[in-house]
Order: sequence, then structure tokens, then C-alpha cells
Amino acid sequence: MKLKQESKYQVGVVLGSASDLDKVEALFKVFDEFEIGYELAVISAHRTPELLEEYARSVYSRGFKVLIAAAGLSAALPGMLASLVHIPVIGLPISAGTLNGIDALLSISQMPPGVPVACVGIDSPRNAGLLAVRILSLTDCSLAGKLSGYRKAMAGNVVTKMRNLKEEGYPVWEF
Amino acid sequence: MKLKQESKYQVGVVLGSASDLDKVEALFKVFDEFEIGYELAVISAHRTPELLEEYARSVYSRGFKVLIAAAGLSAALPGMLASLVHIPVIGLPISAGTLNGIDALLSISQMPPGVPVACVGIDSPRNAGLLAVRILSLTDCSLAGKLSGYRKAMAGNVVTKMRNLKEEGYPVWEF
Amino acid sequence: MKLKQESKYQVGVVLGSASDLDKVEALFKVFDEFEIGYELAVISAHRTPELLEEYARSVYSRGFKVLIAAAGLSAALPGMLASLVHIPVIGLPISAGTLNGIDALLSISQMPPGVPVACVGIDSPRNAGLLAVRILSLTDCSLAGKLSGYRKAMAGNVVTKMRNLKEEGYPVWEF
Amino acid sequence: MKLKQESKYQVGVVLGSASDLDKVEALFKVFDEFEIGYELAVISAHRTPELLEEYARSVYSRGFKVLIAAAGLSAALPGMLASLVHIPVIGLPISAGTLNGIDALLSISQMPPGVPVACVGIDSPRNAGLLAVRILSLTDCSLAGKLSGYRKAMAGNVVTKMRNLKEEGYPVWEF
Amino acid sequence: MKLKQESKYQVGVVLGSASDLDKVEALFKVFDEFEIGYELAVISAHRTPELLEEYARSVYSRGFKVLIAAAGLSAALPGMLASLVHIPVIGLPISAGTLNGIDALLSISQMPPGVPVACVGIDSPRNAGLLAVRILSLTDCSLAGKLSGYRKAMAGNVVTKMRNLKEEGYPVWEF
Amino acid sequence: MKLKQESKYQVGVVLGSASDLDKVEALFKVFDEFEIGYELAVISAHRTPELLEEYARSVYSRGFKVLIAAAGLSAALPGMLASLVHIPVIGLPISAGTLNGIDALLSISQMPPGVPVACVGIDSPRNAGLLAVRILSLTDCSLAGKLSGYRKAMAGNVVTKMRNLKEEGYPVWEF
Amino acid sequence: MKLKQESKYQVGVVLGSASDLDKVEALFKVFDEFEIGYELAVISAHRTPELLEEYARSVYSRGFKVLIAAAGLSAALPGMLASLVHIPVIGLPISAGTLNGIDALLSISQMPPGVPVACVGIDSPRNAGLLAVRILSLTDCSLAGKLSGYRKAMAGNVVTKMRNLKEEGYPVWEF
Amino acid sequence: MKLKQESKYQVGVVLGSASDLDKVEALFKVFDEFEIGYELAVISAHRTPELLEEYARSVYSRGFKVLIAAAGLSAALPGMLASLVHIPVIGLPISAGTLNGIDALLSISQMPPGVPVACVGIDSPRNAGLLAVRILSLTDCSLAGKLSGYRKAMAGNVVTKMRNLKEEGYPVWEF
Repeated sequence: MKLKQESKYQVGVVLGSASDLDKVEALFKVFDEFEIGYELAVISAHRTPELLEEYARSVYSRGFKVLIAAAGLSAALPGMLASLVHIPVIGLPISAGTLNGIDALLSISQMPPGVPVACVGIDSPRNAGLLAVRILSLTDCSLAGKLSGYRKAMAGNVVTKMRNLKEEGYPVWEF
Repeated sequence: MKLKQESKYQVGVVLGSASDLDKVEALFKVFDEFEIGYELAVISAHRTPELLEEYARSVYSRGFKVLIAAAGLSAALPGMLASLVHIPVIGLPISAGTLNGIDALLSISQMPPGVPVACVGIDSPRNAGLLAVRILSLTDCSLAGKLSGYRKAMAGNVVTKMRNLKEEGYPVWEF
Repeated sequence: MKLKQESKYQVGVVLGSASDLDKVEALFKVFDEFEIGYELAVISAHRTPELLEEYARSVYSRGFKVLIAAAGLSAALPGMLASLVHIPVIGLPISAGTLNGIDALLSISQMPPGVPVACVGIDSPRNAGLLAVRILSLTDCSLAGKLSGYRKAMAGNVVTKMRNLKEEGYPVWEF
Repeated sequence: MKLKQESKYQVGVVLGSASDLDKVEALFKVFDEFEIGYELAVISAHRTPELLEEYARSVYSRGFKVLIAAAGLSAALPGMLASLVHIPVIGLPISAGTLNGIDALLSISQMPPGVPVACVGIDSPRNAGLLAVRILSLTDCSLAGKLSGYRKAMAGNVVTKMRNLKEEGYPVWEF
Repeated sequence: MKLKQESKYQVGVVLGSASDLDKVEALFKVFDEFEIGYELAVISAHRTPELLEEYARSVYSRGFKVLIAAAGLSAALPGMLASLVHIPVIGLPISAGTLNGIDALLSISQMPPGVPVACVGIDSPRNAGLLAVRILSLTDCSLAGKLSGYRKAMAGNVVTKMRNLKEEGYPVWEF
Repeated sequence: MKLKQESKYQVGVVLGSASDLDKVEALFKVFDEFEIGYELAVISAHRTPELLEEYARSVYSRGFKVLIAAAGLSAALPGMLASLVHIPVIGLPISAGTLNGIDALLSISQMPPGVPVACVGIDSPRNAGLLAVRILSLTDCSLAGKLSGYRKAMAGNVVTKMRNLKEEGYPVWEF
Repeated sequence: MKLKQESKYQVGVVLGSASDLDKVEALFKVFDEFEIGYELAVISAHRTPELLEEYARSVYSRGFKVLIAAAGLSAALPGMLASLVHIPVIGLPISAGTLNGIDALLSISQMPPGVPVACVGIDSPRNAGLLAVRILSLTDCSLAGKLSGYRKAMAGNVVTKMRNLKEEGYPVWEF
Repeated sequence: MKLKQESKYQVGVVLGSASDLDKVEALFKVFDEFEIGYELAVISAHRTPELLEEYARSVYSRGFKVLIAAAGLSAALPGMLASLVHIPVIGLPISAGTLNGIDALLSISQMPPGVPVACVGIDSPRNAGLLAVRILSLTDCSLAGKLSGYRKAMAGNVVTKMRNLKEEGYPVWEF
């Protein structure tokens, strides 16, 4: 039973604000591509601190292996989650407000010694998702294979686009 | 009884790290000057989240009127305190790490709508303390008078320094 | 009479420019929600310095308890007000010009020792207003209760939005 | 045999420059505390690209589960390793040159979609190490327990330091 | 034959992403103006590292004299090319993501000692192209003459625009 | 004759690019308001260096008293003019490219010791013009009077806008 | 008499803090070199607002032609002076606190439309002084001659230093 | 004769200030290693504009192939040289003043379209020199060979340092 539940929801995705949903859509696509179960929560470290704690307490029993926390502005969510659990927490800085996300990037990456967060780029949900897949691949060999396939497809896609430029008349590298 | 306790500790000062003590010493001098009772705590939002919550729960019963939270790097402490209590929270960004405190300044000031923190300048304990005094003066008229005196002394001090420059031979403004 | 006047206008809101009105509308909503009397002024520290001084002189007699000053660019208004009065001054940096408000944020927060300003985030009128409410709650117990209610409503709102995502088909946390 | 080798070196630590060794010493202490086997390499993405590739090819056969890459300036190392392998790569920005590490922080975190790096704070070797431990704990339950112990010790350390301040004469929180 | 091939493709232009094509169009115009043969490739340092290496290996045999690499975000492409070949590599930072290209500018310019990249301005394809022309002019005297002509035309264009302002009614400098 | 010429063109306005004309229109309005003769030139320090020198040589004979130089990006124009003449040079940073004018602001303000430029804010043509008027007022008393009038009108304008807010229903300061 | 007083003190130098004296010493050397009378004042916009006003009121009667205001941090002094007088005000940003003077540079340069300040570089007292001399030279022809001499001496000094390098064994340009 | 002169001084190195000599020493070492003749000049774009022009006029007749210009602060030197000659100009930003060289980096890289400068990293004389060598190698095949040797030595040096770490007791990669 436990194992099943684990396989159902391996990743907990937490948004600091429901309004950030549009900026993280690629995250869900990654999990669909890799057939990884995820669960979504909207928890604001600052507006719903009790909910944050309740969520953190449930992380082990519900079998999550990785958390992804997306937040903008002072973006305390990823760090606070990392302070409450000891599974890996991926922090996804969102550009909100006027500073283009540099505030969230610094808040999420510049954690004090002892409480690590794995920060990815500003508004980079795809990389947040793929980092989770890489971590999960350590316990699920099939994911390692899929990651190889993903990487090949990604490289192939670049090559295809390059070849399309030839049709547009550019003198393109032929190899 | 309660009132006495209130007068004993009106301000709760929370440091994110004991190593920041040197950078906030001026805070305690302000409270001594204004004869304001304060209590010191060292609580890391990230390293001691349970302590943070326990502290927040005790804030009302112990009669604090204002909190001052000093933190460096991603500096979640002021914001998390502000999310747990509804008395005013003053955030004091500390320069730690390599970025001269700009990370802490952004983390502390760029709070999401709904949870305000009163941010002062980087490594500015004196202003954090004086802001607390201004707030307390709303409930203690004697502080308003002391603030006026403080302001006059501060202005007088500038004038004295200006006059000292005359003795050093500079052509100084005489008014 | 005096007390009535105090209850009529507890907060003085000062805009550095009438053109910033749109960016601070949420401020007035907060005061309406909390039934706090406020008065609006448009005073530019640089364009109307005499008005600034006149305003500052009237602050005590008119019974203001807190000032909120919103300004963009070099944003001297909050600091100059804080230099002229000893009630708490909240500084609200506005994004004007090309630098996204980082100029105003630094001008408002990086005050010299002795003259504190309570800085909130760039374009964050709601937090400026709520910080004023927190400060006023020290002298008006009913506001403390309203702040608790506000906080619960805010948390409830997050939960509602999370649940709405379930209806959109996302696998949402159920607690 | 294979398993033994795995347990010998679970983490590959790669420095972009031998001169950064002083800035990452805390990394090795973390691995000693958690009894995790690591192997050290010095590989510059820019000065030894062939070595980088050779290293990447050997990652799977030698049983590494996580890589940590520390680099300063334009800091291409973490990203290039992440492009060549599909295990998790942790990027540790080092402050080198005159820009305090903000160049390395941006280079390491702002990866293009498809190739994730888990970025930690500037000059934060302890967090790089602890993030690796969190990831490894998914496949080694004993580490989860050690992480809990580590967290408790860390919290206890904060409390001890707070109590020491009492002996120095500060009015310290007693709970 | 070899020489002919050289004259066919003197410059290798490499884009980190086909989506950056719009931002570098001026590059091709420069080469058309100066009748310089170029070849276009799309190679992502991070998504197609093997392709990068294959490309680098072919650089000498195919007779390229200069490479131009355009990339955004962490922008490893120019530096990695420079690490694999010893002909001059021009790095063109592209504004991608939310940080306006400052991330790419720092990644491309802040190379470690030993591996130089010639960085031009953010989104400045024209200057990337003209820098290549200047370098090629060392081996092709006719280009030096064309550069002089280009410079004169550019200056003439400024003067023409100035004179047009006179027709719009401005009091314009007459010399 | 000479004096007449002087009064005809007291200010030389130099644009680094004709395309910046829209961003400096307020400059011409200021000169019209204050009835100050100005002459416009388009000179690029980088694209027309000979023109720059010719212009600088003519500055004294043509009776200019102040120069205003507007430029974006690396913005060498104000500094190069200041190196060639010894009348005051006002530098007006223009936001061009992707960095919002911070590049031009630094280039224009951070001059080496010995060659001063009077820098105003990014995209602030009005202040560039008014600074020129202040300087010219030292030699033309009537301008001092006009500046006083300008200042009063400006203050009056703020007051008028404040009063208009009353009509929109806001509780506005009455003084 | 009046004229004499004018010649005695043509420039008013105002420091925001007596502690900045060391950082502006070069200012006084410039005035000694050019035999320009100056008067020094220490006035903090924030700590001595009344003094600021008193000073501003005396500016015309005492015959100042230019003001130089040096300030660090939020650096309101230059702008506030410029709002109170209509002679030219030169703002000199001082590096104080942890942000290397970028806060003061932005506060001083990013003035709102209508109130210009002539900003020079961070910690650049020499340029502040020389800008004042350029402005004064409009009313004192002898200064124009001295500025030409200064410029020649400065150029000669560069050439001398270049020639000294020859004696140190460098292959130096001979012209 | 002409050819000989060319081989004597292939690179013109121009410092904006003699005081920057210490920061560019590595430049001369590179030229000594590669046996490339260079000539040193000290020319300030702002303090010696006539010298700059004279230097630029002599560039072709004296047979320079590449110029390297090092400058700090507003750093106009590289761009002005590039505006006056059509051989490649390498710009080397120097950290001077309080902003760590970010001002010089932006001034040098953010050139307007039409006048390219090849910018290297802040305080990176070695890369400035090596970029010149790469460019010169297009006309001198022996340099291409030396560059290959340099690169191998550099890689070998990294490997040696890695092996030294083994002797210090670290578990080092053996390949």
C-alpha cells in the first residue's frame, strides 16, 4: 500500500500563490512526460504558516521524495520547507513585482549554512521538474533511461531546427 | 502584574544568528538611552523553526509590543515572525556573506501583500531601535518627549562637529 | 473635540506625486476595511519643501499617529518627513522611471543613523497600510482582533484558491 | 563489488580550480560527519575540456550518485557537467574576481530549459554537501536519521549560543 | 581548393538557440555588406555538447578564421568554443529570460584566465559582425578599405540625420 | 555682434543619436519657457569622432556657455566633450538597449578625476535643461527671477492636483 | 563690500556628516589651486532639517554662486538643497555603509523632474570641485585661463608618467 | 624595413592611467611567453584627448595589428580608440573606484552599433593578451602552434595541481 502511495505522488509541488500557476505549467508537462505522480498545493509561507507546518508534517507519511517550491518576491517558501523536512527541496524563483525575480533568486539561493535549497533559474519550471526527475532516477532506474531519451530528443530537436534554417536559405552547417 | 511585565520587556529582539551580535550592539544602546525594556532571543527561521513558532506563540502573553528581527542572507526571520504575530515587526538586514546585505535587504523588504515588515537599512541597528521607540511612543507619552530631546541632541552634535572643524582651520559657516 | 479629530484621521498619507495615485489605491482599501480614518496629501519633498514643513508642523496638533509617504526615484519624502516628526513614518517606494523602483527602495531604506523610516516593498501599498494598522493596534485593541480576522480570511482565501485548482483537474492536496 | 565501489565514492566533487580548495573545505567536513565517500577532482570546463568529458563518461561506471561542481567567474563547470550526465549536479558558486560571486551565481542558476543544475548560495560548501546528503538519503535510510540528528544538533547549538548570551549579561529569552 | 573553401566560409556563426535568430539578423547583413562568407550553426553547449565538440574539431579543417557565438542566460557557448579552439571567438550576449541579458553578459565576459572570449554588448549583432570584419581585415587588405568606407558612411549618415532635423524646424548646427 | 550671437545660442545640445530625439523633447520646452537660445547637434562620440572635435573647437568662438550631451549605452559623448572644452558639460543618460539606462548613468557619472561631467537622472531632459538654466542664471539675473517663478508654479501645480483629488472624493489635507 | 564677500566665499560646501571630511579633502585642494573662496558647513538633511533651511535662506545674501553637497546612503542633502535654492547644486555621492555608494549615486542623480542636481562620481571630490570651477568660470574669465592651464598640466602629467615607464624598462611610445 | 617594424611592435597596449600598471602586468608576461613585440602607452581619453588622436593616427604607419586598451571607471578609452582606427581593439575593464569594475565593464562592452570593442573580463590582463595572440595567429602560423602548446601546458598544470591534492591526503580522481 505504502509503496503504491509513493508511486502515486512522488513529488510535492507547492506554489506560494495560486496566481503563479501560469508560470509553472511546464512543470506539470515534465511530470506527464516522465510519468511521475505529483501533487499540487498552494501554501504561502507568510499567509498560511500553519498550513505550511501541517504540510511539512505530512511529507514523510505521504511518501514524497522531493518537494518543489515556487515563490516570488521575498520567496521564503522553499527555505522554510527545507527547514522543516529533510528530503530534497527544489526552489523555483518566480518573477513577481518589479525586480524581474532577482529578489526571489537571492532569497532562495542565499540560504544560511545548514539548510540547503536546490535553486534553479528564474521562471524555469522545466528545469525544476527535470531536477526532480534526476533525483528520482536514483531510486527508479527506468527514469535514468527516460532521461537519456529526453536528452537525445532535445539534441535532435536542436539539429532539426538548425536544418530548418537551411530551408529558409541560410548557409547552414552540414555534418 | 501584567502591566509590570509589559514595562519590563516591551521589545523582543530576535537575532537570526548569535554571530550577528556585534552588528546590532547599537540597538541595545538605544534601549538603554530610552529606558526601554527589551529581551533578546537567538532564533533561526531555518535552523530552529519550532523555536520560532514557540516564540511567536508567547509574544502576546509576555506583553511585547514590537519585535525587531535581524537576519542576513535569505533573511526569512522577520517575514516569518510577521506571518505569525500581528504586532509590528521591524526587519534589520545584516550584511553577511559576499553580497554586502543586498540579499537580506530584498528578502526583508519585498514581502508579499498581506504580511508587512518594517524594513530599515543594512546594518542599521540604531534605526531599528529608534523605529521601535517611535512606535512605542504612541502608547507612552514620555517617549515622545525623549525623542524630541534625542533629536535636539543629535542636531547639536552635528553643530558641535561643524564648529570643531573651524578649530582645524577650515572656513566654517557661522550662524 | 481633540479626541474626535484624532479618531477621524489617524493616518496621514502623503504622495510625492499625484500621478502615483493609481499605484497606492490598495492603501485606501485597507483603511476602509479596518475603518481607519486617513487623510491624503500630495507633497513633493523637492517641489514643495515649504509645504512639507508646514505639513510636518501640523502633524501633532491634528492628531496623526502614523504617516505613510509614497515616493519614486530619489524618493526623499519619507526620510524628510521622518526628520521633521517623531511619530512612525512608513516609506512606500514607487516604481517610477526606468529602474523599476530599486532607486526608491534604496533611498527610503538606507537612512542615516538617527532617523528611521519603516520601508515596505516596491509598489506595496497594501503592506504599507497593514503596517500602519499593526502600529495603530497598539493603541486600539479592536484593531488587533480585526488583524486576526484579516489573517484568517487571507489564509482561507489561499485554501479556497487551492481547492479551485482541484476543479480545474489538478491533483491537489487534501487535508 | 560494484556496490562496494558505490559506497566508497557516492559523491564526485569537482573544483574548477585548485585554488578554490580553501573555500570548499566545509564540504569535506559534511561528508566526514555523514560518513559519505567522496572523490575529489580538479577540472576546468574551460582549461581542460577533454578531461571534463572523460570524467563525465566515467560517472556512471564508477557509481557516483551526485556531483558537486564548484566554480567562480563565468562558472561553466556545473552546467557542462549537467549537460553530459543525468545524475543530479549541484552547482556551488565561488566568489572569485571582483564581483563577489554574483557572476557565478547567475551563470550557475540561469541554465537553459532542459539542463537543470541545483544551485546553492555563494561560497556555501556546507549547503552543497548537505543537499547531496538529502539526495543520497532517498537511497540510504540511515542518512535520513542522521539528517534528523544533524538538524537537532544544529537547533541545540543555536539554543546553547542564546543561553551563553545570558551569561554575558543580556536579558535573554527563557523558555 | 583549400583557399577557396576558406574564402567561402571565413566566419562560423553559432547560435545557442534557433529562437535567437531574430535577435542576430543584423549579423548577416554585416557579412553581406562586406561580402564575407559565413556559415550558420545552431548548437547548444548544454543541450548538444557532443555536437559542440564535433563542431570544434571541424573548425580548422573547414578554414574558419573567426567564430561568433550568440547565447542567452548562463551562455556557456562562447566560452566552451573558446576552450576547444584557438582561433578568436566573439561572444554575443542575448537578452533572454527576465534579467535583460546581464546574466549572459557576465557569463561571457568573466572568463577564467587562459581562455579569452571577445565579448560585445547585449543584443549587439552588428558589433559582433564588425569585430569579425576587423579581425579578418588583418589578412584581407580589401576589408580594411571597406571598413574605412563603412565608417565614412556611418558618419555621413549621422550628419544627414542631423540636417534632417533642421527641416523639422530645430536650430541645428551648421558646419 | 559677438554678444548678440551669445544670446542667440547660449546652450549647445548634442545628441549621441538622432533616434534619441523623442526622449529629450522636454529639454526644448524648458528653453522655450525660459527664452534661452539653444542649438542642436547630432554627434556620436564613436561614429563621428572628427565631428566631435570640430564641434568642441567651435564652442568658444560661437559663445556657448553650457553644453548638454545626451547619450545611451556606453555614453562616451558627455565625457569626451568635457575633455575637450572647459565650460560646464551636463550629461543626460538615455535608456537605450536592455539595461534601462544604468549603463549610461554609470558611464556618464563615473568620470576619472580631472574631467567633471554634471550628470542628471536617466531620461530626465527637463532636469538637464533646468540645470543649464541655473548655471546661466549666474550671468543673467533675469533667469534667477524666472527660476523663482518656475518653482512657485511647480509648487502651485502640486497643490492644484492635491485639491483636485478632493473633488474625486478623497479626504484631502486642507491648509 | 558685497562683491568682496562674493569673492571671499563663492562656493558653499556642505557635508552631510563630519565623518565624510576625509573623503572630500581633494575638494579643498582644488579651490586652493584655483584661488576660489569656499565656506564649509556640516548639515544633515535628516538630522538637522532646520539648519538646512536656515542655510538655504542665507545662500543668496551671502553671495554663494554654487553649492556642493556631499552625502552617503540615502543622500537627501543635495536634492533638498536644490529644492530650496535656485543656484546650481553639485551632488557628490559618498560611499558609506555596505553598498559602495551606489545608493547615494542613485538618490542624488535620480531627481524628480523640476529640481535638478549636478551629480558627479562616487567619492569624486576633485570632479565636484572642478565642476564648480567650470561653472564659476562663466562669470570670472581668469578661471577659464586657469582651467586651460590645469588641463595642460594634467595632460603633461600623464606624459611624464608614461616616460617614467620607459626608465623602468618598458617599450614605451615615443612621439 | 616596414615588415621588421611590424614584427617589432605588433600590439599597442594603452593604459588609461599609469596607476593601472600593476593590474595589467600579466599582459606583458603573455607577450613575452609568445615572443610578441608590444609597445606601451599611457593615454587618457579624458585627460589627453589630443594624444589619443595623435596615437590613433600613427597606428597604421607603425604597423600595429591589434590594440589593447585598459581603463577603469567610465572607461571611454577602448571605445574611443575603436572609433578612430579599424584594427581590432580589445577593451580591458579595470576595477577602480568603489564599484568593483562593473562600471568599466558596462562602458566597454555596451558600445553603440557600428563601433565594436572586444571586451574581456574585469582585471583580466591575461585574457586580453591571449585574445590578441589568437587574433595575431591568423597572420602568423607559428602562434597557432604556440597556442596549442599553451593550452596543453595549462591543462597539464590543472592535472598537476589535482595530483598534488592527493599527496595532501584527499581522495583524488585517478584516470
